[in-house]
Amino acid sequence: VDTNTRSVAVDGMGGDFAPLAVVDGVLLAAKSGVPVLVFGPEAELIALLSEREPAWRDLGIVVSGTSEVIEMAEEPVHAVRRKPHSSLVAAVRAVAEGKAGGVFSAGNSGALMAAAVFVLGREEGIERPAIAGVLPTLQGSVVALDLGANVDCRPHHLEQFGYLGAAYARRLFNISKPRVALLSNGAERGKGSALVKQAAELLQQSSLHFIGNVEPAAVMQHATDVVVCDGFSGNVFLKTLEATAGMFRHLLRHDAAMVRLLEERFGESAQSGARLLGVRGVVLVGHGASHAQAVARAIQKTHTIILAEK
Amino acid sequence: VDTNTRSVAVDGMGGDFAPLAVVDGVLLAAKSGVPVLVFGPEAELIALLSEREPAWRDLGIVVSGTSEVIEMAEEPVHAVRRKPHSSLVAAVRAVAEGKAGGVFSAGNSGALMAAAVFVLGREEGIERPAIAGVLPTLQGSVVALDLGANVDCRPHHLEQFGYLGAAYARRLFNISKPRVALLSNGAERGKGSALVKQAAELLQQSSLHFIGNVEPAAVMQHATDVVVCDGFSGNVFLKTLEATAGMFRHLLRHDAAMVRLLEERFGESAQSGARLLGVRGVVLVGHGASHAQAVARAIQKTHTIILAEK
Repeated sequence: VDTNTRSVAVDGMGGDFAPLAVVDGVLLAAKSGVPVLVFGPEAELIALLSEREPAWRDLGIVVSGTSEVIEMAEEPVHAVRRKPHSSLVAAVRAVAEGKAGGVFSAGNSGALMAAAVFVLGREEGIERPAIAGVLPTLQGSVVALDLGANVDCRPHHLEQFGYLGAAYARRLFNISKPRVALLSNGAERGKGSALVKQAAELLQQSSLHFIGNVEPAAVMQHATDVVVCDGFSGNVFLKTLEATAGMFRHLLRHDAAMVRLLEERFGESAQSGARLLGVRGVVLVGHGASHAQAVARAIQKTHTIILAEK
Repeated sequence: VDTNTRSVAVDGMGGDFAPLAVVDGVLLAAKSGVPVLVFGPEAELIALLSEREPAWRDLGIVVSGTSEVIEMAEEPVHAVRRKPHSSLVAAVRAVAEGKAGGVFSAGNSGALMAAAVFVLGREEGIERPAIAGVLPTLQGSVVALDLGANVDCRPHHLEQFGYLGAAYARRLFNISKPRVALLSNGAERGKGSALVKQAAELLQQSSLHFIGNVEPAAVMQHATDVVVCDGFSGNVFLKTLEATAGMFRHLLRHDAAMVRLLEERFGESAQSGARLLGVRGVVLVGHGASHAQAVARAIQKTHTIILAEK
């Protein structure tokens, strides 16, 4: 295997705390043995890397200079078209050109999705790629998608998310027929928005093991292996879970052991990189507010997936 | 004040654990001094009450016999039209007829809303009543609506929810100009579903103190006094908050003091009765899974609101 195709392309300017948090995350990941190709303003990245770790070149880190930056609030499609020399687009292009095996960015997630679609292309039969997270439950993990890539969905998009999520769960959990459910405001038939009701009919007729609607509590009790929702509800679901966990961390701050347990179970989720499914390549989306530890975990996760899917 | 108009009408057959959990809740509430008018099959309710508390008649409880029951899964509008003699519809009618000052049901919440609209009528300018909860934050409370009455909304519905929520927050928190925000997948302008973006424009032009979009974490940090959303997202938000809190209760079950703190902060929320806003009368909606304690708290809350709004 070519070493290039094992390395992780990283958007050095992606995220609220870039480039510093990204540089520190890259150093942490590189020290754990991950070859990293980092994109951004060359002089600035080299200066930062040298300041934090004079021997950074020995860690397998390669800097690739880019001249543009896509901001967090930019309109994604427009930004990707107008800034082909941005760190985000260049990092995705590295995967298409075989210079890296996968890419991670904590930047504008809409732009990352747009770049992945334009540069890598969609998987067959998939109209809209989706962001999939692996969330903790009381008895294992669940694949949840879409977590925010598509805020406005149509029923057949949710059906396609079902297929994407099931394929991911099959690989991740090593099960042959993952249970697929729709996130809803009630488990009964007849509950749900118009979107959920129509998606339920499509999923019922699909070849998937569709088990119906589930409420958030059922997801956390591991009643399903895959939970499907539109990107707006999924984002509210994920961020409410994280925010509630954050409140508990605050309430429990006197109890170091409990805080550690919470970090282990809930600190991960989207912070450490969610997978963009439905595109031809390994693409991980980070939380905008990722600090160095989260960046490092996401880069390591990208690397693990690259090795597993070779 | 007529004692009748202080009493709380209760749907004796509403909820997953009715009538037993309701009867026990009615007894608890009555023992705390709340006059209760309970609707349901007369012989069954009297037998249950007598079994649990032989002296129940001395507690100010009155049983009113009804012959029909609306099930949890029935289509709401149809059920209300077809079953005028159900415990749910009869309990709402008691408010319209001045036999009670307010009503509580843990039954089919769609049917409760439909009955409230048909029997009590909407407030002026309000097309869709909404379920409003008072949720805990790190520094106080926030009014959240809609929590599930309207799963499919249009932008002007969200604007109306803004007015309903602001009026409620003004009374509850005794503030003159409550902050109103839209629940969204990002605080930046340009984030949000098509629905949220259009509602934001309407709210921007309204006379409300609209502060823009908020994510779940900002809600929990008390960045707003009122958070507005469609009933589907609001239900996912509320139930994710409750389910995450439930997971923590499970993880912390060895720590009795912490569990008590969690119960105080999170055990309440929707379980103890959310207010249906936008109808002419005091209507409280309970969680279907309400046990006796939750029923009792909801009846007490209904009573407190009746007295406060006289």
